[in-house]
Amino acid sequence: MKKPLVNIVIGSDSDLPTIKETEKILEEFDIAYETKILSAHRSPQKVSEFASNAANQGVKVIIAAAGGAAALAGAIAAHTTLPVVAIPIETKSLNGLDSLLSTVQMPSGVPVGCMAIGKAGAKNGAFFAIQILGTNDENIVRKIQNHKRKLREKVEQKNKDIKN
Amino acid sequence: MKKPLVNIVIGSDSDLPTIKETEKILEEFDIAYETKILSAHRSPQKVSEFASNAANQGVKVIIAAAGGAAALAGAIAAHTTLPVVAIPIETKSLNGLDSLLSTVQMPSGVPVGCMAIGKAGAKNGAFFAIQILGTNDENIVRKIQNHKRKLREKVEQKNKDIKN
Amino acid sequence: MKKPLVNIVIGSDSDLPTIKETEKILEEFDIAYETKILSAHRSPQKVSEFASNAANQGVKVIIAAAGGAAALAGAIAAHTTLPVVAIPIETKSLNGLDSLLSTVQMPSGVPVGCMAIGKAGAKNGAFFAIQILGTNDENIVRKIQNHKRKLREKVEQKNKDIKN
Amino acid sequence: MKKPLVNIVIGSDSDLPTIKETEKILEEFDIAYETKILSAHRSPQKVSEFASNAANQGVKVIIAAAGGAAALAGAIAAHTTLPVVAIPIETKSLNGLDSLLSTVQMPSGVPVGCMAIGKAGAKNGAFFAIQILGTNDENIVRKIQNHKRKLREKVEQKNKDIKN
Amino acid sequence: MKKPLVNIVIGSDSDLPTIKETEKILEEFDIAYETKILSAHRSPQKVSEFASNAANQGVKVIIAAAGGAAALAGAIAAHTTLPVVAIPIETKSLNGLDSLLSTVQMPSGVPVGCMAIGKAGAKNGAFFAIQILGTNDENIVRKIQNHKRKLREKVEQKNKDIKN
Amino acid sequence: MKKPLVNIVIGSDSDLPTIKETEKILEEFDIAYETKILSAHRSPQKVSEFASNAANQGVKVIIAAAGGAAALAGAIAAHTTLPVVAIPIETKSLNGLDSLLSTVQMPSGVPVGCMAIGKAGAKNGAFFAIQILGTNDENIVRKIQNHKRKLREKVEQKNKDIKN
Amino acid sequence: MKKPLVNIVIGSDSDLPTIKETEKILEEFDIAYETKILSAHRSPQKVSEFASNAANQGVKVIIAAAGGAAALAGAIAAHTTLPVVAIPIETKSLNGLDSLLSTVQMPSGVPVGCMAIGKAGAKNGAFFAIQILGTNDENIVRKIQNHKRKLREKVEQKNKDIKN
Amino acid sequence: MKKPLVNIVIGSDSDLPTIKETEKILEEFDIAYETKILSAHRSPQKVSEFASNAANQGVKVIIAAAGGAAALAGAIAAHTTLPVVAIPIETKSLNGLDSLLSTVQMPSGVPVGCMAIGKAGAKNGAFFAIQILGTNDENIVRKIQNHKRKLREKVEQKNKDIKN
Repeated sequence: MKKPLVNIVIGSDSDLPTIKETEKILEEFDIAYETKILSAHRSPQKVSEFASNAANQGVKVIIAAAGGAAALAGAIAAHTTLPVVAIPIETKSLNGLDSLLSTVQMPSGVPVGCMAIGKAGAKNGAFFAIQILGTNDENIVRKIQNHKRKLREKVEQKNKDIKN
Repeated sequence: MKKPLVNIVIGSDSDLPTIKETEKILEEFDIAYETKILSAHRSPQKVSEFASNAANQGVKVIIAAAGGAAALAGAIAAHTTLPVVAIPIETKSLNGLDSLLSTVQMPSGVPVGCMAIGKAGAKNGAFFAIQILGTNDENIVRKIQNHKRKLREKVEQKNKDIKN
Repeated sequence: MKKPLVNIVIGSDSDLPTIKETEKILEEFDIAYETKILSAHRSPQKVSEFASNAANQGVKVIIAAAGGAAALAGAIAAHTTLPVVAIPIETKSLNGLDSLLSTVQMPSGVPVGCMAIGKAGAKNGAFFAIQILGTNDENIVRKIQNHKRKLREKVEQKNKDIKN
Repeated sequence: MKKPLVNIVIGSDSDLPTIKETEKILEEFDIAYETKILSAHRSPQKVSEFASNAANQGVKVIIAAAGGAAALAGAIAAHTTLPVVAIPIETKSLNGLDSLLSTVQMPSGVPVGCMAIGKAGAKNGAFFAIQILGTNDENIVRKIQNHKRKLREKVEQKNKDIKN
Repeated sequence: MKKPLVNIVIGSDSDLPTIKETEKILEEFDIAYETKILSAHRSPQKVSEFASNAANQGVKVIIAAAGGAAALAGAIAAHTTLPVVAIPIETKSLNGLDSLLSTVQMPSGVPVGCMAIGKAGAKNGAFFAIQILGTNDENIVRKIQNHKRKLREKVEQKNKDIKN
Repeated sequence: MKKPLVNIVIGSDSDLPTIKETEKILEEFDIAYETKILSAHRSPQKVSEFASNAANQGVKVIIAAAGGAAALAGAIAAHTTLPVVAIPIETKSLNGLDSLLSTVQMPSGVPVGCMAIGKAGAKNGAFFAIQILGTNDENIVRKIQNHKRKLREKVEQKNKDIKN
Repeated sequence: MKKPLVNIVIGSDSDLPTIKETEKILEEFDIAYETKILSAHRSPQKVSEFASNAANQGVKVIIAAAGGAAALAGAIAAHTTLPVVAIPIETKSLNGLDSLLSTVQMPSGVPVGCMAIGKAGAKNGAFFAIQILGTNDENIVRKIQNHKRKLREKVEQKNKDIKN
Repeated sequence: MKKPLVNIVIGSDSDLPTIKETEKILEEFDIAYETKILSAHRSPQKVSEFASNAANQGVKVIIAAAGGAAALAGAIAAHTTLPVVAIPIETKSLNGLDSLLSTVQMPSGVPVGCMAIGKAGAKNGAFFAIQILGTNDENIVRKIQNHKRKLREKVEQKNKDIKN
């Protein structure tokens, strides 16, 4: 079993269906990953420990997903030099606008790379992590190029289908 | 010198002019307090240490002010059983809507008591802390009653002034 | 039967399912409470009477929940020196953004401690009230510590489950 | 001196510059009015007394202006059968969106007639009150018709000016 | 059959379920009314004709409901000296925020009295119209007092029910 | 003097500085235009007359700019078969979000083509009108191509400047 | 088969149900059109090629529909002198507010004519394109006049129905 | 002179003051970079060429800043396998909410890593790019650790200063 290059962190198991989209794409690209449940507000010490040690474990990118007053990605970023990719989860009352603003509006010095709200963001969290890994792995770059070509071909095929 | 019952925490010295409003009211009510600069994102370990120990130091209420992806109040609440009163600071681009949503939309189990955005909230942070202290101090209750009477009289005086 | 330390106030019986979350947690912590239906706009005199007398009845914290132009918590705060904890109820058209802003943006001198919109806020209203009571009751503090430990353990258990 | 048909109520003397626009138009239409400073949150009892007695004093319309968690118009409407016209005051952080939502989203049974945010709303509060008075006063209707004609002519004159 | 004192205007028959709430309350108060379908954008000339003549037909108050770029109430107000009460209809994409802002933000000189979004606003449109009629009809005032008393009693009854 | 192909309509002379941007571009492209001040709410009959007759006068495109409850573009669109290009004017309290939503959310059957809020939109109103005229005028198309080339060259020049 | 005067472009086949509304109206007006699936983000080169060549193919108006970070209409407008009519698609989390702002807030020099969010906008995209074609085709103008008359009659018929 | 590892792209020279913050931090970390002015809407072909070739030129991360309908980062991401870090520029009317939503809400398959609005985001764009480079450069990681230590010490120093 390969050592995980990517760690996915969610604050609650209610975020599992969203993050499943992230996992599927990492698997598709054959990227070793591990998913953890850690809460910035309910298990803060575990978040600190995890984030402080991730780099030493060989992790290269952390993907964090949270909703509402979504402090998780920022709390992780506070304790690591690794790039943290953040996914704002959709919320019932404010549709994820709260998650988005509490994720993206980080103070200078402690960035997180914020994706779209919800499942589109969950997928893109995986793609973005893969692109980061690709900055140092030609094999991954070829897989991304391949994937982008497939996306393009799929659109082109649909365009042909619609003509008939 | 009295031991502080209230601790005010801000994430940056740019928040000092806002929090000055909080301090003035605590002084007016003769409540011992201490102001600290601690950042959820830049000095997270100090935030954990502070929050974990505050109750043991005799602190009764913590007031936390932060802007943008305002994680400070929540990060403190994660480590203490004390009530945390939060003040969302006004921001340049989104006027404090980001601060408000990232402060108020806390997950269940870890509440913060959110005040209004900016200086009105900063004043009310003090009043709310005082009201909490008042739940166990008849002397403070009398001071609040006195203050509320003065507020009322001031409005009534202005109402008289306007007639002339 | 114990004298209620906490009073929950709602403006309409349509808010009962939300406030049920508050009640469950108060019961779990064995805090005596009473729930009342009083409307700032439909029975304003009853609100004034209630709020003016609550402190004398031995109440320590008032929790008020309302939606839309949510004036209830503020109307109560206007008549009492007790801390008022407010829960903005979700609304059909604006999803509770109206409730949130009309609750949290209180003028200086008359604070309410605002929780998150909807059921998460309803739960936290109870926790926050309990934390206020805890500022003067070591027994309650131990219960909160216990509860926070359980929250943490639950997250840690889920984290273990997900590994398998 | 004529008995006031219109009462203007503001929560704070900081609202005087806004409400000055209301007063100027009432004077222009020769409508007797009185301006009062009463606060829903700082002098709630005075608000109840005022609102409960206004109709008996011969007042026909109440205009209330407030900002932030703008409860004033609703608090007055709770105690009177008179139509209450509300002006949401501009606020520093949220530009009056908070004032607007906390004013306009009244529960069924207790309406207020909400105007635009700020000075345009302050002027229209006067015009709307005058239109209400006009439902029973042909002389006022003629003045409104006259005023509408002047508005039209002013636009038409500007349209001519721009051609040259 | 009595001559209608109130005219309800909607832009489309899809608004009928909302406005049904208005009609029920007018009927409850025994106020003669008529409902019309006229569109500011699809039958503008009919809107002008209607609004220009309504006062001469004995109408005292016009209630207009529209959604989206909700121009109807303003278009009517442009052609009449009667008070126009406006109800912003809920919309699918923006939940009625579009309807609210396009209704309430009228320029000075041409006010409409805006109610809450959707059915609560539809009910209140009726109540507000009745309050306007009440400024000149003691009989109506007594009915409103009666209705307000019933509202209060209903809340008080629910408060008693909840105790048991 | 050439017969105007484009008519610019504003509701108030306070919109002149914004619309000046539109005029400058039409002049740059040598398109005959005329600017009118007509108000949907203050001179509605003039708006109807203008809009009903514009096509017969040889006008091909109407550009309408308004702020707040911005009904002007829609009111014109209601009376003409010509394409109406709309510019939402910035507003003081809500920054033009009110203007935008009340302009763009038109009901089906009566479209307006909405531009960006404020001066960028005012410029683009001219460009868009020119593009519409270009659908039937090769000479105008060449001018647009020329303009787009200049825009591109200007960006490229700035890109060179920044290198040095 | 007639050469298409209008091209409809969507970024994904999930937008087909929305754009079906556009197609129906173009067919009703007997306007030749073609629908294409091209993505600004997944097949950008195809978008450039399409947009660069559309005018030469005899296309007069392009209608583009996209959701979220809706770059499609702008990407097309960047490569053509034809008027581009844009339809912001409703989105799950932010209800199309994201689509609207990313569509309408175009920089000066590169306009798109933005319609309402969702299906109302999809219908109006067709009507607006037809109005543009009508600036040079008397036959189309008559069809629009006819259609506007039918809209008016339909409203008037509903108004009659409601009386009975 | 070192080959640039980071490319900063802005759509207009009006964005230079914002992006200056990005440049200062890259220089502080001694990261070779190049700044380009390329517009998604005004020089789209240059954007495609740049983005298609950047990886081959040895660039590892692209930072793109744009405002309003901010398509630049997405347009670049469409043509490259490199990670694209995006900075939403503050705008005059909507304060950068438009820039934020049009930047962050990317469709799945084509991510950009979005930073905060304005100068805080501009600084963080640099830090995030550096963190990405650090995933493969121990020397950079040490610099980041050093920088984070300085941030922490600065906060701690301020905390000491405030005590005196």
